[in-house]
Amino acid sequence: MAHLMSTSCSIKISSSYRPCGQPLSQDRTVLPNSFTIKTSKSPFKRLILKGHRAGRSCVVLATAAPVSKEVSANPRSGSDRSPNDSSKPQRVMVIGGDGYCGWATALHLSNKGYEVAIVDSLVRRLFDHQLGLDSLTPISSIHNRLRCWKAITGKTIELYIGDICDFEFLSETFNSFEPDAVVHFGEQRSAPYSMIDRSRAVFTQKNNVIGTLNVLFAIKEFREECHLVKLGTMGEYGTPNIDIEEGYITISHNGRTDTLPYPKQASSFYHLSKVHDSNNIAFTCKAWGIRATDLNQGVVYGVKTDETSMHEQLYNRLDYDGVFGTALNRFCVQAAVGHPLTVYGKGGQTRGYLDIRDTVQCVELAIANPAKPGEFRVFNQFTEQFSVNELAALVTKAGQKLGLDVQTISVPNPRVEAEEHYYNAKHTKLIELGLKPHLLSDSLLDS
Amino acid sequence: MAHLMSTSCSIKISSSYRPCGQPLSQDRTVLPNSFTIKTSKSPFKRLILKGHRAGRSCVVLATAAPVSKEVSANPRSGSDRSPNDSSKPQRVMVIGGDGYCGWATALHLSNKGYEVAIVDSLVRRLFDHQLGLDSLTPISSIHNRLRCWKAITGKTIELYIGDICDFEFLSETFNSFEPDAVVHFGEQRSAPYSMIDRSRAVFTQKNNVIGTLNVLFAIKEFREECHLVKLGTMGEYGTPNIDIEEGYITISHNGRTDTLPYPKQASSFYHLSKVHDSNNIAFTCKAWGIRATDLNQGVVYGVKTDETSMHEQLYNRLDYDGVFGTALNRFCVQAAVGHPLTVYGKGGQTRGYLDIRDTVQCVELAIANPAKPGEFRVFNQFTEQFSVNELAALVTKAGQKLGLDVQTISVPNPRVEAEEHYYNAKHTKLIELGLKPHLLSDSLLDS
Repeated sequence: MAHLMSTSCSIKISSSYRPCGQPLSQDRTVLPNSFTIKTSKSPFKRLILKGHRAGRSCVVLATAAPVSKEVSANPRSGSDRSPNDSSKPQRVMVIGGDGYCGWATALHLSNKGYEVAIVDSLVRRLFDHQLGLDSLTPISSIHNRLRCWKAITGKTIELYIGDICDFEFLSETFNSFEPDAVVHFGEQRSAPYSMIDRSRAVFTQKNNVIGTLNVLFAIKEFREECHLVKLGTMGEYGTPNIDIEEGYITISHNGRTDTLPYPKQASSFYHLSKVHDSNNIAFTCKAWGIRATDLNQGVVYGVKTDETSMHEQLYNRLDYDGVFGTALNRFCVQAAVGHPLTVYGKGGQTRGYLDIRDTVQCVELAIANPAKPGEFRVFNQFTEQFSVNELAALVTKAGQKLGLDVQTISVPNPRVEAEEHYYNAKHTKLIELGLKPHLLSDSLLDS
Repeated sequence: MAHLMSTSCSIKISSSYRPCGQPLSQDRTVLPNSFTIKTSKSPFKRLILKGHRAGRSCVVLATAAPVSKEVSANPRSGSDRSPNDSSKPQRVMVIGGDGYCGWATALHLSNKGYEVAIVDSLVRRLFDHQLGLDSLTPISSIHNRLRCWKAITGKTIELYIGDICDFEFLSETFNSFEPDAVVHFGEQRSAPYSMIDRSRAVFTQKNNVIGTLNVLFAIKEFREECHLVKLGTMGEYGTPNIDIEEGYITISHNGRTDTLPYPKQASSFYHLSKVHDSNNIAFTCKAWGIRATDLNQGVVYGVKTDETSMHEQLYNRLDYDGVFGTALNRFCVQAAVGHPLTVYGKGGQTRGYLDIRDTVQCVELAIANPAKPGEFRVFNQFTEQFSVNELAALVTKAGQKLGLDVQTISVPNPRVEAEEHYYNAKHTKLIELGLKPHLLSDSLLDS
């Protein structure tokens, strides 16, 4: 895995044109049919892709940061813009914007009028190659994705390809894009991956912790008003025998009372890396006045959002393997192909779940209602909680309505976790901000 | 700082003999006056130093792990030795054994009959060069230290020079030495150092977290019965407004009760790295059955132990600078040279303190009473708590008895911390194991 530590990725943009295909919407959209490439003068292997729509052409620029103002499709007024200046769209940097949640979020924010840049090393695609895995839904290259988005909506998403563990790269993306908010999905996000062997455990913690430290230092040095929206996980809490609160708990002990960080009991090197991140971020909020929202997300399911459904080149990835596939997505695929649903152990493991359409909604709510300077705000980002057995039953029932004969089998649990436990996690803060959940029972058949 | 990430240190052993000088004890000990060097065939820059006393000679072997049995001064019965086999001395690996606490501990354990190996990259000595700092007490090279120890006591301490972030090096030290216990001091241990700049913050967390992960994987792979004694810090807890317990707290909440990890609120990237370590270790105890003791140590003061006092070449380091010097040691030096005691801010910052003679006693107690397989045991390792103002008053009073005119001034606090706060931390578990504290009021004049 040592090569994954490399701080730059060598990327080539193919010069051959690949048509976007037909849009899925009723309106036939005019798609670009050509592009040109400018090579970078930078010694760094990082690229900025800017769609530029002029009639039937799409210009793809590969250039070094900082971006020349002449080629910018989105001129801005400069660094004196306030993040809360409501007269102009906010500039949001989505780190990890080529991934499952990141891609859907980037499109959603772009569609809602935010100026969006994706920062991604594309290493998630490398993991697929290395482990012999693939998304069930064929996904386009990030370049074709962004060209297609530009062609269909007229909206440009900037692209910075590089590794945030490379602080020089990250600094230049900050100075080039000048984000008002950073949404940070850019981490190795599979618990099973982190448990494969020592090198992957070390990679996961090094990559996630150092990447997040770099983001914090970049905000401090270049954009101190920038709001960090960081993706954590409900898995940080483990399965305590008391109610799980949102980030903090008030404890009375020996006659005194304090409100303290909720105790964490993570159960993989991946989940631990998120705990480390949360602790580091909380400290920088206190020490430097960083404004941050930690979204402790539940298990995400589903593949379609309003935006990813617009065209097949915008499709999101759907992982159904044992490494990157989450329980519900895996069950749906198993049911569809006539494979028994594989329940780990007793199946009493209960977790919070949410539809990917709610992921994008929650992130937007967090951005639109930023944390105050110095505030470390924690939201539990899920909408319903289920045990694995309850999920299997739901999928079985939904399958039957479609005429499928769905079986369930128990397999030895590869994880270190309680298989029967108390679980009651609070999740009211995002509802208070206006979240309108898509509930599983209503939507399972959709996907 | 990038070079500090290097996983090996290039070390040369000088071939010129430097006499140990006269021992400080009444008995004149015969010291070695020559040594020979065998060069390593290993591609790795790591050395094993084995003292070998034959009359007036001291043989220093520089060789690659694993050690040839022929040259071992301490033949052992093999890997089937049980850690609890009381008929043979336990084998203890002291990682970071060239540092302030590590050196004193290694000598103490050796003196008590344990077979000891020191594992150290010697990077702490490099920090002094880089920052222009130095120990107040001149310290000998690790090679001369160990030669002197052998000459005075007849006891051999093995030496493995290398970086535990290099797993190949660490694996070979485990397979060569076959430890029954590992005492892990091998971390960057200065909060101010970790706050100098981004690269030192990243270095501290990467070095400490990855090094500890490697130790955990080495135990799992090569010595699963080995007891890990890890140095944490009382600073992990921060300054909550409730009593600090030893690692865990029982919380009643909404009618239910659970005992959970005590919430942590660290206040530097260094302290945070220790929190990350604690979380990682706790997980591996649960997942792999590792046996571990986390020693949340207070601020250590003093320089002399029974062993370091035996000879000037065994002297311990005494740091009095603003980066590595701790409050009390710094105050004593300031008082001695007629410099005002520098109190940060209001001086109400209260912490736990202990004499270095108690550090070595506590570590030995932890080794002699190991954690059970799967147990993650936390001891708060300090003997008394004082505010900075109380410390300054104690030093002033002690100075007056010596005829010194000691002044105190307040300087702006370079740290992010409450300067007036509640503080009451429990520390009974080591007392229950037999700790006999050296109290500050009794011993301040000693040093």
